[in-house]
Amino acid sequence: MKKVAVVLAGCGVYDGSEIYETVITLLSLDSHEAQYQCFAPDIEQLHVINHKTGEVMDGESRNVLIEAARLARGEIKDLTEAKAEDFDALIFPGGFGVAKNLCNFATEGTNMTLNPEVARIATEFAEAGKPAGYICIAPTMVASIYNGAQCTIGNNAETAAAIESMGATHVDCPVDDIVIDEENKVITTPAYMLASRISEAAAGIEKLVRQILEMAQ
Amino acid sequence: MKKVAVVLAGCGVYDGSEIYETVITLLSLDSHEAQYQCFAPDIEQLHVINHKTGEVMDGESRNVLIEAARLARGEIKDLTEAKAEDFDALIFPGGFGVAKNLCNFATEGTNMTLNPEVARIATEFAEAGKPAGYICIAPTMVASIYNGAQCTIGNNAETAAAIESMGATHVDCPVDDIVIDEENKVITTPAYMLASRISEAAAGIEKLVRQILEMAQ
Repeated sequence: MKKVAVVLAGCGVYDGSEIYETVITLLSLDSHEAQYQCFAPDIEQLHVINHKTGEVMDGESRNVLIEAARLARGEIKDLTEAKAEDFDALIFPGGFGVAKNLCNFATEGTNMTLNPEVARIATEFAEAGKPAGYICIAPTMVASIYNGAQCTIGNNAETAAAIESMGATHVDCPVDDIVIDEENKVITTPAYMLASRISEAAAGIEKLVRQILEMAQ
Repeated sequence: MKKVAVVLAGCGVYDGSEIYETVITLLSLDSHEAQYQCFAPDIEQLHVINHKTGEVMDGESRNVLIEAARLARGEIKDLTEAKAEDFDALIFPGGFGVAKNLCNFATEGTNMTLNPEVARIATEFAEAGKPAGYICIAPTMVASIYNGAQCTIGNNAETAAAIESMGATHVDCPVDDIVIDEENKVITTPAYMLASRISEAAAGIEKLVRQILEMAQ
Protein backbone atom coordinates (compact mmCIF):
# COMPACT_ATOMS: atom_id res chain seq x y z
CA MET A 1 0.00 0.00 0.00
CA LYS A 2 1.46 3.33 -1.09
CA LYS A 3 1.76 6.13 1.47
CA VAL A 4 1.40 9.78 0.60
CA ALA A 5 2.12 12.86 2.72
CA VAL A 6 -0.30 15.75 2.13
CA VAL A 7 0.80 19.19 3.36
CA LEU A 8 -1.94 21.66 4.28
CA ALA A 9 -1.89 25.43 4.82
CA GLY A 10 -5.04 25.96 6.88
CA CYS A 11 -8.71 25.52 5.94
CA GLY A 12 -10.32 27.76 3.34
CA VAL A 13 -9.43 29.02 -0.13
CA TYR A 14 -8.61 32.64 0.81
CA ASP A 15 -6.34 32.10 3.85
CA GLY A 16 -5.65 28.35 3.96
CA SER A 17 -5.78 25.23 1.81
CA GLU A 18 -8.46 25.12 -0.87
CA ILE A 19 -11.03 22.77 0.67
CA TYR A 20 -12.36 21.12 -2.52
CA GLU A 21 -8.86 20.48 -3.90
CA THR A 22 -7.81 18.90 -0.62
CA VAL A 23 -10.88 16.69 -0.23
CA ILE A 24 -10.72 15.55 -3.87
CA THR A 25 -7.03 14.70 -3.36
CA LEU A 26 -7.77 12.61 -0.25
CA LEU A 27 -10.80 10.90 -1.82
CA SER A 28 -8.81 10.07 -4.92
CA LEU A 29 -5.91 8.66 -2.87
CA ASP A 30 -8.27 6.55 -0.75
CA SER A 31 -10.17 5.33 -3.82
CA HIS A 32 -6.84 4.04 -5.18
CA GLU A 33 -6.13 2.24 -1.89
CA ALA A 34 -3.29 4.61 -1.04
CA GLN A 35 -2.79 5.67 2.57
CA TYR A 36 -2.36 9.34 3.37
CA GLN A 37 -1.22 11.44 6.30
CA CYS A 38 -1.90 15.16 6.50
CA PHE A 39 0.67 17.59 7.93
CA ALA A 40 0.72 21.34 8.50
CA PRO A 41 3.16 23.81 10.04
CA ASP A 42 2.45 24.91 13.62
CA ILE A 43 2.50 28.65 12.85
CA GLU A 44 0.04 31.55 12.86
CA GLN A 45 -1.84 32.24 9.62
CA LEU A 46 -0.79 35.41 7.75
CA HIS A 47 -4.35 36.60 8.41
CA VAL A 48 -7.96 35.41 8.64
CA ILE A 49 -10.29 36.16 5.73
CA ASN A 50 -14.07 36.37 6.06
CA HIS A 51 -14.94 34.03 3.18
CA LYS A 52 -18.37 35.62 2.74
CA THR A 53 -17.06 39.15 2.15
CA GLY A 54 -13.45 38.48 1.14
CA GLU A 55 -12.23 40.98 3.75
CA VAL A 56 -9.59 40.53 6.44
CA MET A 57 -11.16 39.89 9.87
CA ASP A 58 -9.38 42.48 12.01
CA GLY A 59 -8.18 41.22 15.38
CA GLU A 60 -8.63 37.53 14.49
CA SER A 61 -5.70 35.16 14.47
CA ARG A 62 -5.71 31.43 13.78
CA ASN A 63 -3.11 28.68 13.79
CA VAL A 64 -2.39 26.89 10.51
CA LEU A 65 -2.05 23.43 12.11
CA ILE A 66 -5.23 23.78 14.21
CA GLU A 67 -7.32 25.05 11.28
CA ALA A 68 -5.87 22.45 8.90
CA ALA A 69 -7.02 19.85 11.46
CA ARG A 70 -10.59 20.71 10.38
CA LEU A 71 -9.74 19.57 6.88
CA ALA A 72 -8.24 16.33 8.21
CA ARG A 73 -10.98 15.48 10.73
CA GLY A 74 -8.32 15.86 13.44
CA GLU A 75 -6.00 13.31 11.79
CA ILE A 76 -3.07 15.64 11.28
CA LYS A 77 0.53 15.98 12.47
CA ASP A 78 2.94 18.86 12.90
CA LEU A 79 4.98 19.24 9.70
CA THR A 80 8.18 18.84 11.76
CA GLU A 81 7.22 15.15 12.13
CA ALA A 82 7.11 14.50 8.37
CA LYS A 83 9.98 12.48 6.88
CA ALA A 84 10.32 11.59 3.21
CA GLU A 85 11.61 8.13 4.17
CA ASP A 86 8.17 7.29 5.63
CA PHE A 87 6.28 8.06 2.40
CA ASP A 88 6.24 7.27 -1.30
CA ALA A 89 5.02 10.65 -2.49
CA LEU A 90 4.13 14.19 -1.44
CA ILE A 91 1.19 16.41 -2.42
CA PHE A 92 0.53 20.11 -1.83
CA PRO A 93 -3.10 21.08 -2.52
CA GLY A 94 -3.60 24.74 -3.48
CA GLY A 95 -5.43 27.70 -1.97
CA PHE A 96 -4.11 31.17 -1.14
CA GLY A 97 -2.84 29.79 2.18
CA VAL A 98 -0.03 28.11 0.24
CA ALA A 99 1.16 31.52 -0.97
CA LYS A 100 0.52 33.12 2.44
CA ASN A 101 1.48 30.51 5.05
CA LEU A 102 3.70 27.87 3.36
CA CYS A 103 5.69 30.51 1.51
CA ASN A 104 5.34 34.27 1.11
CA PHE A 105 4.67 34.53 -2.62
CA ALA A 106 1.45 36.45 -1.84
CA THR A 107 3.40 39.32 -0.27
CA GLU A 108 6.92 39.00 -1.73
CA GLY A 109 6.26 37.77 -5.26
CA THR A 110 9.40 36.48 -6.98
CA ASN A 111 11.47 37.40 -3.90
CA MET A 112 9.52 34.77 -1.99
CA THR A 113 11.01 32.32 0.48
CA LEU A 114 9.63 29.02 1.72
CA ASN A 115 8.65 28.26 5.31
CA PRO A 116 11.74 26.38 6.60
CA GLU A 117 9.81 23.16 7.33
CA VAL A 118 8.12 23.27 3.93
CA ALA A 119 11.54 23.73 2.30
CA ARG A 120 12.98 20.84 4.33
CA ILE A 121 10.28 18.28 3.52
CA ALA A 122 9.91 19.24 -0.15
CA THR A 123 13.67 19.06 -0.64
CA GLU A 124 13.80 15.67 1.09
CA PHE A 125 11.30 14.25 -1.40
CA ALA A 126 13.13 15.86 -4.33
CA GLU A 127 16.50 14.46 -3.22
CA ALA A 128 15.00 11.01 -2.62
CA GLY A 129 13.66 11.00 -6.20
CA LYS A 130 10.12 10.52 -4.90
CA PRO A 131 7.22 12.04 -6.86
CA ALA A 132 5.57 15.25 -5.70
CA GLY A 133 2.33 16.89 -6.78
CA TYR A 134 1.73 20.65 -6.63
CA ILE A 135 -1.86 21.76 -7.23
CA CYS A 136 -3.27 25.15 -8.24
CA ILE A 137 -1.03 27.98 -6.90
CA ALA A 138 1.39 25.55 -5.16
CA PRO A 139 3.67 25.33 -8.26
CA THR A 140 4.94 28.82 -7.35
CA MET A 141 7.08 26.91 -4.81
CA VAL A 142 8.61 24.55 -7.40
CA ALA A 143 11.45 26.84 -8.52
CA SER A 144 12.68 27.09 -4.91
CA ILE A 145 12.95 23.31 -4.62
CA TYR A 146 13.98 21.99 -8.06
CA ASN A 147 16.42 23.25 -10.66
CA GLY A 148 14.51 24.21 -13.78
CA ALA A 149 11.56 21.88 -13.30
CA GLN A 150 8.53 22.05 -15.59
CA CYS A 151 5.22 22.96 -14.01
CA THR A 152 1.88 24.66 -14.63
CA ILE A 153 -0.52 27.02 -12.92
CA GLY A 154 -2.81 26.91 -15.96
CA ASN A 155 -2.45 29.93 -18.24
CA ASN A 156 -2.29 33.04 -16.02
CA ALA A 157 0.39 35.10 -17.78
CA GLU A 158 1.52 37.06 -14.73
CA THR A 159 1.92 34.06 -12.43
CA ALA A 160 3.52 32.03 -15.24
CA ALA A 161 6.05 34.84 -15.80
CA ALA A 162 6.81 34.94 -12.07
CA ILE A 163 7.43 31.19 -12.06
CA GLU A 164 9.75 31.51 -15.08
CA SER A 165 11.67 34.40 -13.54
CA MET A 166 12.29 32.31 -10.40
CA GLY A 167 13.87 29.59 -12.56
CA ALA A 168 11.20 27.00 -13.33
CA THR A 169 9.67 26.37 -16.76
CA HIS A 170 5.97 27.09 -17.07
CA VAL A 171 3.83 25.04 -19.46
CA ASP A 172 0.26 26.12 -20.26
CA CYS A 173 -2.26 23.44 -19.32
CA PRO A 174 -6.07 23.10 -19.42
CA VAL A 175 -8.00 22.63 -16.17
CA ASP A 176 -8.65 18.92 -16.68
CA ASP A 177 -5.05 17.98 -17.41
CA ILE A 178 -1.63 17.74 -15.74
CA VAL A 179 1.96 18.64 -16.57
CA ILE A 180 4.49 15.90 -15.87
CA ASP A 181 8.19 16.61 -15.32
CA GLU A 182 9.46 13.04 -15.74
CA GLU A 183 13.03 13.81 -14.70
CA ASN A 184 12.17 15.58 -11.44
CA LYS A 185 8.97 13.59 -10.87
CA VAL A 186 6.99 16.79 -10.39
CA ILE A 187 3.31 16.70 -11.36
CA THR A 188 1.16 19.84 -11.47
CA THR A 189 -2.44 20.70 -12.36
CA PRO A 190 -4.24 24.09 -12.51
CA ALA A 191 -7.36 23.16 -10.48
CA TYR A 192 -8.93 26.38 -9.14
CA MET A 193 -6.42 28.58 -10.96
CA LEU A 194 -8.79 27.79 -13.86
CA ALA A 195 -11.74 25.73 -12.64
CA SER A 196 -15.20 27.27 -12.90
CA ARG A 197 -16.85 24.26 -11.25
CA ILE A 198 -15.81 21.55 -8.81
CA SER A 199 -15.94 18.68 -11.34
CA GLU A 200 -13.38 20.49 -13.52
CA ALA A 201 -10.95 20.71 -10.60
CA ALA A 202 -11.64 17.04 -9.83
CA ALA A 203 -10.74 15.93 -13.37
CA GLY A 204 -7.21 17.34 -13.15
CA ILE A 205 -6.58 16.36 -9.54
CA GLU A 206 -7.68 12.76 -10.15
CA LYS A 207 -5.21 12.57 -13.06
CA LEU A 208 -2.47 14.02 -10.83
CA VAL A 209 -3.12 11.44 -8.11
CA ARG A 210 -3.12 8.54 -10.59
CA GLN A 211 0.15 9.78 -12.10
CA ILE A 212 1.82 10.21 -8.71
CA LEU A 213 0.80 6.72 -7.57
CA GLU A 214 2.06 5.28 -10.85
CA MET A 215 5.43 6.99 -10.36
CA ALA A 216 5.66 6.05 -6.66
CA GLN A 217 7.72 2.93 -6.16
CA MET B 1 -31.08 21.54 -15.08
CA LYS B 2 -32.11 20.51 -11.56
CA LYS B 3 -31.41 22.91 -8.70
CA VAL B 4 -30.57 21.78 -5.21
CA ALA B 5 -30.34 23.82 -1.99
CA VAL B 6 -27.59 22.64 0.39
CA VAL B 7 -27.83 23.84 4.00
CA LEU B 8 -24.57 24.14 5.95
CA ALA B 9 -23.85 24.45 9.68
CA GLY B 10 -20.33 25.89 9.69
CA CYS B 11 -17.03 24.34 8.56
CA GLY B 12 -15.57 21.36 10.41
CA VAL B 13 -16.85 18.04 11.71
CA TYR B 14 -16.84 18.92 15.43
CA ASP B 15 -18.56 22.32 15.40
CA GLY B 16 -19.88 22.77 11.85
CA SER B 17 -20.69 20.82 8.71
CA GLU B 18 -18.61 17.72 8.02
CA ILE B 19 -16.26 18.92 5.30
CA TYR B 20 -15.84 15.64 3.36
CA GLU B 21 -19.60 14.94 3.32
CA THR B 22 -20.28 18.45 2.05
CA VAL B 23 -17.63 18.41 -0.68
CA ILE B 24 -18.65 14.93 -1.86
CA THR B 25 -22.27 16.13 -2.01
CA LEU B 26 -21.36 19.18 -4.11
CA LEU B 27 -19.01 17.20 -6.38
CA SER B 28 -21.66 14.55 -6.93
CA LEU B 29 -24.33 17.15 -7.72
CA ASP B 30 -22.02 18.94 -10.17
CA SER B 31 -20.97 15.66 -11.80
CA HIS B 32 -24.67 14.99 -12.49
CA GLU B 33 -25.07 18.45 -14.05
CA ALA B 34 -27.25 19.64 -11.18
CA GLN B 35 -26.89 23.23 -9.94
CA TYR B 36 -26.51 23.88 -6.24
CA GLN B 37 -26.70 26.85 -3.91
CA CYS B 38 -25.35 26.69 -0.36
CA PHE B 39 -27.15 28.40 2.52
CA ALA B 40 -26.43 28.76 6.23
CA PRO B 41 -28.09 30.56 9.14
CA ASP B 42 -26.54 33.89 10.19
CA ILE B 43 -26.08 32.92 13.86
CA GLU B 44 -23.20 32.33 16.25
CA GLN B 45 -21.85 28.77 16.51
CA LEU B 46 -22.65 26.94 19.75
CA HIS B 47 -18.88 26.89 20.29
CA VAL B 48 -15.56 26.56 18.49
CA ILE B 49 -13.71 23.25 18.72
CA ASN B 50 -9.96 22.89 18.25
CA HIS B 51 -10.05 20.04 15.72
CA LYS B 52 -6.54 18.91 16.62
CA THR B 53 -7.29 18.35 20.34
CA GLY B 54 -11.08 18.04 20.31
CA GLU B 55 -11.36 20.68 23.04
CA VAL B 56 -13.49 23.81 23.16
CA MET B 57 -11.45 26.94 22.34
CA ASP B 58 -12.34 29.21 25.25
CA GLY B 59 -13.11 32.80 24.33
CA GLU B 60 -13.48 32.06 20.59
CA SER B 61 -16.72 32.71 18.79
CA ARG B 62 -17.49 32.24 15.12
CA ASN B 63 -20.48 32.86 12.89
CA VAL B 64 -22.10 29.86 11.17
CA LEU B 65 -22.74 31.69 7.88
CA ILE B 66 -19.23 33.17 7.70
CA GLU B 67 -17.51 29.86 8.48
CA ALA B 68 -19.81 27.91 6.13
CA ALA B 69 -18.69 30.38 3.44
CA ARG B 70 -15.26 28.65 3.61
CA LEU B 71 -16.93 25.43 2.53
CA ALA B 72 -18.69 27.18 -0.31
CA ARG B 73 -15.72 29.23 -1.61
CA GLY B 74 -17.74 32.32 -0.66
CA GLU B 75 -20.74 31.27 -2.80
CA ILE B 76 -23.27 31.15 0.02
CA LYS B 77 -26.46 32.94 1.03
CA ASP B 78 -28.20 33.61 4.32
CA LEU B 79 -30.70 30.81 4.99
CA THR B 80 -33.49 33.41 5.23
CA GLU B 81 -33.14 33.85 1.44
CA ALA B 82 -33.83 30.16 0.68
CA LYS B 83 -37.24 29.33 -0.82
CA ALA B 84 -38.41 25.84 -1.72
CA GLU B 85 -40.08 27.19 -4.86
CA ASP B 86 -36.64 28.08 -6.28
CA PHE B 87 -35.27 24.52 -5.96
CA ASP B 88 -36.06 20.92 -6.84
CA ALA B 89 -34.50 19.34 -3.76
CA LEU B 90 -32.81 20.02 -0.43
CA ILE B 91 -29.75 18.40 1.20
CA PHE B 92 -28.35 18.66 4.73
CA PRO B 93 -24.79 17.27 5.00
CA GLY B 94 -23.84 16.03 8.48
CA GLY B 95 -21.29 17.02 11.10
CA PHE B 96 -21.82 17.86 14.77
CA GLY B 97 -22.67 21.43 13.73
CA VAL B 98 -26.04 20.12 12.53
CA ALA B 99 -26.82 18.95 16.08
CA LYS B 100 -25.30 22.10 17.63
CA ASN B 101 -26.21 24.98 15.30
CA LEU B 102 -29.11 23.87 13.06
CA CYS B 103 -30.93 22.25 15.97
CA ASN B 104 -29.99 21.59 19.60
CA PHE B 105 -29.97 17.79 19.64
CA ALA B 106 -26.39 17.86 20.95
CA THR B 107 -27.47 19.57 24.18
CA GLU B 108 -31.21 18.79 24.47
CA GLY B 109 -31.44 15.27 23.05
CA THR B 110 -35.01 14.23 22.30
CA ASN B 111 -36.30 17.56 23.67
CA MET B 112 -34.54 19.25 20.78
CA THR B 113 -35.94 22.08 18.71
CA LEU B 114 -34.94 23.24 15.24
CA ASN B 115 -33.47 26.62 14.42
CA PRO B 116 -36.55 28.56 13.14
CA GLU B 117 -35.12 29.12 9.66
CA VAL B 118 -34.10 25.46 9.37
CA ALA B 119 -37.62 24.44 10.41
CA ARG B 120 -39.13 26.85 7.89
CA ILE B 121 -37.12 25.75 4.85
CA ALA B 122 -37.28 22.02 5.63
CA THR B 123 -41.04 22.19 6.12
CA GLU B 124 -41.45 24.13 2.87
CA PHE B 125 -39.74 21.33 0.94
CA ALA B 126 -41.76 18.67 2.80
CA GLU B 127 -45.05 20.42 2.07
CA ALA B 128 -44.11 20.96 -1.57
CA GLY B 129 -43.47 17.20 -1.91
CA LYS B 130 -39.89 17.89 -3.02
CA PRO B 131 -37.19 15.35 -2.09
CA ALA B 132 -34.80 16.02 0.78
CA GLY B 133 -31.55 14.30 1.77
CA TYR B 134 -30.32 14.12 5.36
CA ILE B 135 -26.75 12.84 5.77
CA CYS B 136 -24.96 11.40 8.84
CA ILE B 137 -26.41 12.96 12.04
CA ALA B 138 -28.86 15.22 10.14
CA PRO B 139 -31.67 12.59 10.28
CA THR B 140 -32.11 13.51 13.96
CA MET B 141 -34.05 16.50 12.53
CA VAL B 142 -36.42 14.35 10.42
CA ALA B 143 -38.97 13.62 13.18
CA SER B 144 -39.45 17.37 13.73
CA ILE B 145 -40.34 17.91 10.07
CA TYR B 146 -42.19 14.80 8.88
CA ASN B 147 -44.80 12.59 10.50
CA GLY B 148 -43.36 9.14 11.02
CA ALA B 149 -40.82 9.24 8.19
CA GLN B 150 -38.30 6.43 7.75
CA CYS B 151 -34.63 7.35 8.07
CA THR B 152 -31.20 6.05 9.10
CA ILE B 153 -28.16 7.18 11.03
CA GLY B 154 -26.51 3.78 10.45
CA ASN B 155 -26.77 1.45 13.42
CA ASN B 156 -25.96 3.47 16.55
CA ALA B 157 -28.52 2.10 19.04
CA GLU B 158 -28.72 5.16 21.26
CA THR B 159 -29.20 7.67 18.43
CA ALA B 160 -31.63 5.32 16.66
CA ALA B 161 -33.69 5.05 19.87
CA ALA B 162 -33.71 8.84 20.21
CA ILE B 163 -34.98 9.19 16.64
CA GLU B 164 -37.71 6.61 17.30
CA SER B 165 -38.78 8.29 20.53
CA MET B 166 -39.15 11.61 18.65
CA GLY B 167 -41.55 9.93 16.22
CA ALA B 168 -39.57 8.84 13.16
CA THR B 169 -38.85 5.24 12.16
CA HIS B 170 -35.19 4.23 12.19
CA VAL B 171 -33.92 1.63 9.73
CA ASP B 172 -30.42 0.14 10.12
CA CYS B 173 -28.28 0.79 7.05
CA PRO B 174 -24.66 0.04 6.03
CA VAL B 175 -22.29 2.92 5.28
CA ASP B 176 -22.40 2.51 1.50
CA ASP B 177 -26.18 2.49 1.22
CA ILE B 178 -29.24 4.73 1.64
CA VAL B 179 -32.70 4.50 3.17
CA ILE B 180 -35.50 5.80 0.94
CA ASP B 181 -38.85 6.95 2.34
CA GLU B 182 -40.79 6.96 -0.94
CA GLU B 183 -43.90 8.57 0.49
CA ASN B 184 -42.17 11.51 2.17
CA LYS B 185 -39.32 11.63 -0.36
CA VAL B 186 -36.76 11.57 2.44
CA ILE B 187 -33.39 9.97 1.65
CA THR B 188 -30.78 9.32 4.33
CA THR B 189 -27.30 7.74 4.51
CA PRO B 190 -25.01 7.08 7.51
CA ALA B 191 -21.78 8.58 6.06
CA TYR B 192 -19.44 9.43 8.98
CA MET B 193 -21.82 7.96 11.54
CA LEU B 194 -20.19 4.73 10.29
CA ALA B 195 -17.48 5.52 7.74
CA SER B 196 -13.92 4.58 8.60
CA ARG B 197 -12.56 6.11 5.40
CA ILE B 198 -13.57 8.82 2.98
CA SER B 199 -14.41 6.48 0.07
CA GLU B 200 -16.98 4.70 2.27
CA ALA B 201 -18.76 7.97 3.00
CA ALA B 202 -18.60 8.82 -0.71
CA ALA B 203 -20.30 5.57 -1.74
CA GLY B 204 -23.43 6.32 0.33
CA ILE B 205 -23.55 10.04 -0.45
CA GLU B 206 -23.22 9.45 -4.20
CA LYS B 207 -26.19 7.04 -4.01
CA LEU B 208 -28.17 9.62 -2.03
CA VAL B 209 -27.49 12.34 -4.62
CA ARG B 210 -28.47 10.07 -7.53
CA GLN B 211 -31.70 9.09 -5.76
CA ILE B 212 -32.61 12.69 -4.95
CA LEU B 213 -32.02 13.84 -8.52
CA GLU B 214 -34.10 10.93 -9.80
CA MET B 215 -36.96 11.89 -7.47
CA ALA B 216 -36.67 15.61 -8.24
CA GLN B 217 -39.11 16.60 -10.98
